[in-house]
Amino acid sequence: MVERVDAPTAADVARLAGVSKATVSYVLSGRRSGSARVRDETRQRVLEAVRSLDYVPNQSARALRRRKTERICLVLPRLGVPYFDALARELQEAVAPHGYTLVIAVSDADAERPAVIEQLRRRLADGVVIVPGAQVARADVEALVPLNVAVVLVADEPAGDGVDVVQSNASEACRGAVQYLVSSGHRRIGFIGHFPPNAARYGRYEDYRAGLRANDLHLDPRLVVGGAASRADAYRSAQRLLLQPDPPSAVFAASDLAAVSTIWAARDEGLRVPHDVAVIGVGNIAEDLVMNPQLTSVGPTSVGSADIAELLLSRLAGEAPAEGRTRLRQWELVRRGSA
Amino acid sequence: MVERVDAPTAADVARLAGVSKATVSYVLSGRRSGSARVRDETRQRVLEAVRSLDYVPNQSARALRRRKTERICLVLPRLGVPYFDALARELQEAVAPHGYTLVIAVSDADAERPAVIEQLRRRLADGVVIVPGAQVARADVEALVPLNVAVVLVADEPAGDGVDVVQSNASEACRGAVQYLVSSGHRRIGFIGHFPPNAARYGRYEDYRAGLRANDLHLDPRLVVGGAASRADAYRSAQRLLLQPDPPSAVFAASDLAAVSTIWAARDEGLRVPHDVAVIGVGNIAEDLVMNPQLTSVGPTSVGSADIAELLLSRLAGEAPAEGRTRLRQWELVRRGSA
Repeated sequence: MVERVDAPTAADVARLAGVSKATVSYVLSGRRSGSARVRDETRQRVLEAVRSLDYVPNQSARALRRRKTERICLVLPRLGVPYFDALARELQEAVAPHGYTLVIAVSDADAERPAVIEQLRRRLADGVVIVPGAQVARADVEALVPLNVAVVLVADEPAGDGVDVVQSNASEACRGAVQYLVSSGHRRIGFIGHFPPNAARYGRYEDYRAGLRANDLHLDPRLVVGGAASRADAYRSAQRLLLQPDPPSAVFAASDLAAVSTIWAARDEGLRVPHDVAVIGVGNIAEDLVMNPQLTSVGPTSVGSADIAELLLSRLAGEAPAEGRTRLRQWELVRRGSA
Repeated sequence: MVERVDAPTAADVARLAGVSKATVSYVLSGRRSGSARVRDETRQRVLEAVRSLDYVPNQSARALRRRKTERICLVLPRLGVPYFDALARELQEAVAPHGYTLVIAVSDADAERPAVIEQLRRRLADGVVIVPGAQVARADVEALVPLNVAVVLVADEPAGDGVDVVQSNASEACRGAVQYLVSSGHRRIGFIGHFPPNAARYGRYEDYRAGLRANDLHLDPRLVVGGAASRADAYRSAQRLLLQPDPPSAVFAASDLAAVSTIWAARDEGLRVPHDVAVIGVGNIAEDLVMNPQLTSVGPTSVGSADIAELLLSRLAGEAPAEGRTRLRQWELVRRGSA
């Protein structure tokens, strides 16, 4: 599987170029000024030697020696989700003081899954955080553990050997949002999911269905639309939902992004929110507060990434138990003006 | 600088565990099923040997041998910019058929700059694409070239040895947008930039000033607001701009995101767009079309990443000349309803 490495070294380059190792190191550092400035001719000779030996001034070798990439990889289902953008920013800030740099990989389509997993297996990072919706199989995640990759899953799944998990009561809170709409007198409650035709991604569709079932409400397929991966898509999905002959009196949207677009679509059609149509989103993002009316949303009571960062950093530091740990994020319905 | 690597090998692990190299390979692959299934006891022995030798089943060694990470790194100034999100998606699709996986690094604050550059020097990726606003110094970019990292800069800068550049006539087109507002009779033209107090990021502020100057218009500092890194921020910045005693009759926003938020803030205050306030954004993103009125925007005539991908892939394939190449992206003002 692994062979002893016999790549050309800096010493080989120095020999071929007829310079010292220090000069090779200096030229490859890219510095162009300073007291140790080398002549252009010397520089060219070093670079030619580098090329002819196919020498990689090898940070991989250094990584091998240090056994660390000093990177954390955040695996997202896609870009453009405000909730994940905020998570990425917070995570970057949390790991930076510990010498780690955050990189982001997107694994949405099944086509991307093998590539991202292969990269993680090839030590893209020392630690990985995988959020809901990212297409990574549990078995693939578990296979990273023997490779000494620290793993934190944000998922309502059990922890496993070396796999820490940040769970939430998101499903319960989302069912509660549907319950709240029913308690407010709504009987025709629509749903906007992310991906057509499969509106079920992220489990929000299941929560919606469970919420209806718990209230003996019939699922009307005309009230379920999928397609909110972008704001433009979400706006058009909301139009489709609201402009039908017998429209819903309330909408449960799978994300705040979709809910925001729903409010805009409603207003553009002259519908009053919440009087003509009530809207609830998921995520509890900052943008909710600049909506008119402000958006009622189901989300974590505190966003932050402190729980994720703590699990990850302690495991990277070798201070975590072999068995996976579990943290719970509290979600709740934040009632504002839109429902 | 670089030492010969003498890390423990799979053979060392096999010897210590008393199993074959194939068994080590199998256990570390993470597979749990199949005809070659190994007993739990054997598996435990292998993992203990891995731990006691501090063995990294080394994808770094493999990368060394292959001289490739098979990764492309896109360096962004921040997440949550629709234009960059679209670029990332398109770039991922363009490089995937060639065996590359896209990873994203964020370099905004000066604090992040050394870390991202250090990662690129440590071979985070075989190729890197750096977009406007990302905080990476030109000298640091040039220092990647001797490390055999393929570099494409999206910037209005000259190409350099091994550094390909995708330029645009964005500045000219943005000045043209201000010119268009003046031609439409506007004299008090406001500006919303991304970052307070420095609204000048991305050069859009300079374009705005140049547009005013070209029309002998005085720059009124009360008409310049900074703070549009998120939609919530942009909405509040637009409110500040529009609700002052002597408000602008037109707004040139540094991004479509900020322009969209400006339209919403205007509508929420009962202002008609474009009658009471005209709005122009930058980016020409899909969301422009679901605004009411539709957003007039300065942007590339075609988004795509074909030019970037072609430069990058040809350089990675060793088919590029040593001297950097230059491509030009055409920008134009797309007139719709908002101005």
